[in-house]
Amino acid sequence: MTTAGEQMHALVERLYPLCRSITGDGVRATLEIIDEYIPLQVHEVPTGTQVLDWTVPQEWNIRDAYVADTAGNRVVDFAASSLHVLGYSVPVSATMPLAELREHLHTLPDHPTWVPYRTSYYTPQWGFCLAQETLDALPDGEYEVRIDSTLADGHLTYAEHVIPGQVPDEVIVSCHVCHPSLANDNLAGIAVATFLAQALAKTTPWYTYRFLFAPGTIGAITWLARNAERVEHVKHGLVLACAGDPGQLTYKQSRRGDAEIDRVTQHVLRASERPHRVTEFTPYGYDERQFCSPGFNLGVGSLSRTPYAGYPEYHTSADNVGFVSPQAMADTLAVCNETFAVLDRNRRYRNLSPYGEPQLGRRGLYDSLGGRSDAKQAQMAMLWVLNLSDGEHSLLDVTERSGLPFDTVAAAADALHGAGLIKA
Amino acid sequence: MTTAGEQMHALVERLYPLCRSITGDGVRATLEIIDEYIPLQVHEVPTGTQVLDWTVPQEWNIRDAYVADTAGNRVVDFAASSLHVLGYSVPVSATMPLAELREHLHTLPDHPTWVPYRTSYYTPQWGFCLAQETLDALPDGEYEVRIDSTLADGHLTYAEHVIPGQVPDEVIVSCHVCHPSLANDNLAGIAVATFLAQALAKTTPWYTYRFLFAPGTIGAITWLARNAERVEHVKHGLVLACAGDPGQLTYKQSRRGDAEIDRVTQHVLRASERPHRVTEFTPYGYDERQFCSPGFNLGVGSLSRTPYAGYPEYHTSADNVGFVSPQAMADTLAVCNETFAVLDRNRRYRNLSPYGEPQLGRRGLYDSLGGRSDAKQAQMAMLWVLNLSDGEHSLLDVTERSGLPFDTVAAAADALHGAGLIKA
Amino acid sequence: MTTAGEQMHALVERLYPLCRSITGDGVRATLEIIDEYIPLQVHEVPTGTQVLDWTVPQEWNIRDAYVADTAGNRVVDFAASSLHVLGYSVPVSATMPLAELREHLHTLPDHPTWVPYRTSYYTPQWGFCLAQETLDALPDGEYEVRIDSTLADGHLTYAEHVIPGQVPDEVIVSCHVCHPSLANDNLAGIAVATFLAQALAKTTPWYTYRFLFAPGTIGAITWLARNAERVEHVKHGLVLACAGDPGQLTYKQSRRGDAEIDRVTQHVLRASERPHRVTEFTPYGYDERQFCSPGFNLGVGSLSRTPYAGYPEYHTSADNVGFVSPQAMADTLAVCNETFAVLDRNRRYRNLSPYGEPQLGRRGLYDSLGGRSDAKQAQMAMLWVLNLSDGEHSLLDVTERSGLPFDTVAAAADALHGAGLIKA
Repeated sequence: MTTAGEQMHALVERLYPLCRSITGDGVRATLEIIDEYIPLQVHEVPTGTQVLDWTVPQEWNIRDAYVADTAGNRVVDFAASSLHVLGYSVPVSATMPLAELREHLHTLPDHPTWVPYRTSYYTPQWGFCLAQETLDALPDGEYEVRIDSTLADGHLTYAEHVIPGQVPDEVIVSCHVCHPSLANDNLAGIAVATFLAQALAKTTPWYTYRFLFAPGTIGAITWLARNAERVEHVKHGLVLACAGDPGQLTYKQSRRGDAEIDRVTQHVLRASERPHRVTEFTPYGYDERQFCSPGFNLGVGSLSRTPYAGYPEYHTSADNVGFVSPQAMADTLAVCNETFAVLDRNRRYRNLSPYGEPQLGRRGLYDSLGGRSDAKQAQMAMLWVLNLSDGEHSLLDVTERSGLPFDTVAAAADALHGAGLIKA
Repeated sequence: MTTAGEQMHALVERLYPLCRSITGDGVRATLEIIDEYIPLQVHEVPTGTQVLDWTVPQEWNIRDAYVADTAGNRVVDFAASSLHVLGYSVPVSATMPLAELREHLHTLPDHPTWVPYRTSYYTPQWGFCLAQETLDALPDGEYEVRIDSTLADGHLTYAEHVIPGQVPDEVIVSCHVCHPSLANDNLAGIAVATFLAQALAKTTPWYTYRFLFAPGTIGAITWLARNAERVEHVKHGLVLACAGDPGQLTYKQSRRGDAEIDRVTQHVLRASERPHRVTEFTPYGYDERQFCSPGFNLGVGSLSRTPYAGYPEYHTSADNVGFVSPQAMADTLAVCNETFAVLDRNRRYRNLSPYGEPQLGRRGLYDSLGGRSDAKQAQMAMLWVLNLSDGEHSLLDVTERSGLPFDTVAAAADALHGAGLIKA
Repeated sequence: MTTAGEQMHALVERLYPLCRSITGDGVRATLEIIDEYIPLQVHEVPTGTQVLDWTVPQEWNIRDAYVADTAGNRVVDFAASSLHVLGYSVPVSATMPLAELREHLHTLPDHPTWVPYRTSYYTPQWGFCLAQETLDALPDGEYEVRIDSTLADGHLTYAEHVIPGQVPDEVIVSCHVCHPSLANDNLAGIAVATFLAQALAKTTPWYTYRFLFAPGTIGAITWLARNAERVEHVKHGLVLACAGDPGQLTYKQSRRGDAEIDRVTQHVLRASERPHRVTEFTPYGYDERQFCSPGFNLGVGSLSRTPYAGYPEYHTSADNVGFVSPQAMADTLAVCNETFAVLDRNRRYRNLSPYGEPQLGRRGLYDSLGGRSDAKQAQMAMLWVLNLSDGEHSLLDVTERSGLPFDTVAAAADALHGAGLIKA
C-alpha cells in the first residue's frame, strides 16, 4: 500500500525523462501515461490552425542531438537529458570551431553545475544548453554539432478529462504539459491534477469538472479558441503549477481578485492554518494569463507551492525528481480536495420564512429547553443560515460572518433545506 | 430628591419579585406598574392566533409550587423565588423518590449556591430549579412535588407607549418583559426604557417614538405580525437589555451594519469617550433577532452593558437587584438620551446656493474682519454644512468629516436654514 | 545663467512691494509684470456685476496712509509696507487721541515685532496694522490719521493664460493675486504658476491648460459665474498657494477625494519619495473652496508647502521675501511638472485583442528566447497594459497595480498603440 503522495511521485518519475515541448511525440507519450490513471480525450489540432491571435506552429520532434569533440566524444548529449537541446531547435549538422559554437550555447554562470532550460518556439534557431563547468572544460578546437530534429506540419496535442456534474456549470483545472525534464514545473502539477481527478470522480459533484492537460500558452489559447461556447459555462478554475517543491503554498488570485475561487481557496488555506501566501494577479506566470485575459476574465486562480521563478532551481536541471516530494504533493492535493469540497457546496439560499425567525422547535430542529447560554454550534449555524439566506449571501459568506466551520454551516443548510425552510 | 438612577433602581426592586413569563398575570402586573410611570396601551392576543410562522401559545399562570420532604418541609419553594419553577411547567401533584425527581431538577454545578433560570415554553414538561448545594443536602427518600399551575387558552400580553413626532417615521425601542426574577435581564432594560420615554415625552421630537414592552421572541413576532403596515414606517430602533450591570456599554450593530442607528450610536459612544465595545450583528441575543430577520432587515441595533451570556450571573439567581446599580442604569440612560438627541436632529440638507460659497457676510453669518487665521468653529461648521449639503450627506456625516461636535454642526444647520440657504 | 528657482525668486521680489487687494491698480500692476513672462488675457468686470451669490464690489485704490504724531513724524507709514493699512480702508483724515485711535489699530501681541495683515472688504471701516512694540512705544496724545484711499465704482481685474491642447477638456491652475506684501502667500504660488505655464507651453499637451490669476474668493466666483459653459470642460485642476516656504509639500485633496488629480498628485509625491503630507478636503483655505462647492464639485486639489495658517509667519510681515527660497519654489515646480506630465498621458485604453494574449513576438515586441526568468520591465509593462486595458483602468491604475514606473507603462502603451493592439 503506497500513499497518494508516493503514487504521485512515482508518476513524476515515469514522466521525467520524456522530452516534452509545445508539440510533438513527447506530449503524446506523456498523455498516454496519464491516461493509465484517468481516461483522457486527446485532441490533435493541425499546424496552421488559427487560434485567437495565434497560429498553431509546426510540430517539433527530436531523435538525437549532441556536441562531439574531434575524437567523437559527446561532450553535450541529448540522450543524457532532454534539457541539453534548445527547445524547437532547427536541425543542424556541422563542424565548427568553439568560438562559433559558443553563440549557440546557453549556460548558467551563477550555477556552474546546472543546465538551463531554454526554448525558441517562434524564432527558428538552434542551440544547446549545458553546465557552465562543462563549457569551461572544453578545449578550443573544432566540434561536431548535430541536432536530428524535425520541424514540420503536424499537430498540437492536448487532452481533456471531464467529470460530469449535476449542472452544466464548469470548473476547469488546468496544467501545462510542455516542459521537458523539469519535475516541479510541471510534472508535480500534472500528478496532482491527475489524482485530484481520481478523487473527484468518486463523488457526484455539483459542478462539471474539466481537467485540461495542454502545452503552456498556445495550448490554453487553442482550447479557448475551440471552445468559445463552452467558456461561458466555466464559472471557476484553477491552474496547477510548481506543486511539489518544499516551499509553502501560494495562491495567486484571479484577475477579478474577488472571484468565488479566490475566496474559497483563501478560506480553505486560512482555515487549515497552514502557512501560506496569497498574491494578487499579475499577467505573468502560467495559463491563468490566458483565462484571465480581459476578454475572458474568468474566475481562474493559480495554486503553487513556491511560485514561478521564485526558487533558484526554476527552469534548470536542478528541478529534478529529488526536488519534489511525496509529502509536498500530498499537501497540495489535500488543499485542492478541500477547496473543491467547499466550492462544490457553496450555494446561495433563500429563506422561505424570512419574516421573523421560523419556529425551529416544532420542526425538531431546536433544543427545547430554553434559558441556557450554551447554544449549540449546529443551532447557531441554522440561525446564521436563516438570517443570511437572502439570495445574496453564500454559505461561505455565512461561514466567514459566523466564524463557524464551513462543514457545520453546510450541514445546517442541508437540515433547513430538508425542512423546507430554505431553497437554493 | 432622588436621582433618575435611584428611581430606576427602585422600579427594578418593585418588579423583581413578580413571576413573569411569555404570558400570564406576571406580565400584566409588570405592565401595570410601568403604567404608573408612562401611560401604556396594553394588547391582549388570544391563544391560537397565528403570528408569522408561530402560534400564540396557551397562557401560563402559577399560584404555588414546591418540593416537600416527608415531614412536610418545603425544600424547594416557588414562594421564595419565581426562579425555582421551570417556566411553563405543566401542573403536577405527586410523590416520588429522589432518584425519579432528579430528572426534573436543574442546578448549576459550577455555581453551587445559585439557582438557574430555565423554561420549556413549547415542550410540555415540569421541573424545578435549585442550588446544587440544596440538592446535595437532600437525603434519599420520597418527596412530594406540587406545581399549582394552569396552562390554558388565554392571551399573550404586551404593551406600547407612543410619543408622537413631527413625522410618521418611527423609532422603536423594545425590551423584553418575559423574564422572572432577573434584575439585569431585563428589569434594568425595562427601567431604562421607561425613563427614556419620560425624557423624550418632554421634547417635541422629529420622529414618532414607539416603546414596546413585550415577551421575548413571541412578543416581537406578535407585534410584527399585527403591524405589517406600520413596519415600513420603522426607520430606526434599539433593543434594550442587560442595561444595569457593572460592565462597560456594548453596542451590537443591526444586521445592516451601517444603518443610521448604528452610525449614531457608535458616534455618541466614541464622542463621549466612554470605554465601550461595538460588536457585529449575530442572529442570537434578544428581539433584534426578529427585527433584523432578512424579510424585515430593520435598522435596529441593541444596547447592553455586558451582553447576553457574557457574565456568570446571567440567567441565575445571582442576577439580583444587587447586581444592577443606579449608576450603571443612569449611564445607559444618558447614552440613550444622547443617541436619540443626535438621531432626531440628523437630517440631510440641500444647499440652495450650491455654486460657489454664498456670501455669508451680508447675511450676518460671517465675521467681517478678514485675514485672521482663527476661523471660529461656528463659521467652520457653516462652511462644512454648506459644502456637504448635497442631499447625500447627513449632519452626522458632516460631523464626522469635519471633526466638529454634532451640536455645533446642528446649530450651524439651524442658522443656515433660518437664512434660507439650505432646505431639509 | 540663473536657475528657474532663482528666476522665480526674482519675480517674487519684483511683485513684493505692490499693494494688491481684491480690486485696484495693485492687481493690474502685478498682472503686467506676469505678462512679461507669459502672455495674459486681462479681464475687467464692472462694480455691481452679479456673480453667483455675490456682487462685484467697488474698486479700492490707495495712494498714501499714515499715522503721524503732533511733530509730524509718521509713526505708521503705508509707504514702508502695504501691510500697514487695513485692506479696503475707507478714506479718513482726522486728528484723535491715542485712546480713540486704538480701536482702529491691529497688532500681534504674541509676535511684537511683526505687522499683521488684515482686511475688511465688505464692511466699511478703516484701520492700521502695526507691530505691537511700535504701539507700545506710542505716547498718549493726539495723532493725525490719514488714509488717502478711494472706494468707488470701477472694476475687478483678473487674468487668464491658456495653453491649447489636443482636446477641449481643460486643466485649470489657479492662484490668488489679492494679497499685498506677503511672499509665500501668494507670490510664490504666482511665480510657480508662471514658470509652470512656461514649461507646459514648450510641450504639445493633451489637455488644454488654463492658468487663472485672480483675487481670492470673489475672483474665482467671478470666473465661475462668467464661464458657466466652460466649467463642464474643466476635468482637473490645482490651486497653488504657499508654494515657497521651507516646509514639506502638502497636497489637499479635492472634495471628491478620489478625483484623478488626487490620485495623480499623490502618486507623483509617493513615487518621488519626497517627504510630504496629504490632507482631506476641508471647505476652508483658498479657491478650491469655490471650485469644490457642491454645485461644481470639480476635481480640483490644492498644492502647498506648509498649508494655510500652518506657520507662524502666515498673514504677517514675517512672510517676506526671505521666507521663501529658490530651492523650495523649484521643488514645488518640479512636482507640478511631474504631476501634469503623468496626468497628461494618463488615459484608458481598450485592448483590441482581448481574448487571450496577442502574440507579441511576431510583432517584434517580445524577446524571442523563452524559458528565462528575467522578463524585462518593458515586456511586463506591455502584458500589464494589455491585461488591464478594458476601458476601465487608466495607465495610472496599471502603474499602481504593477508597481512599474509610470513612464515605463506609458511607453509600453505607446508601443502597443503603435502596433494597433490597443486604442484610446
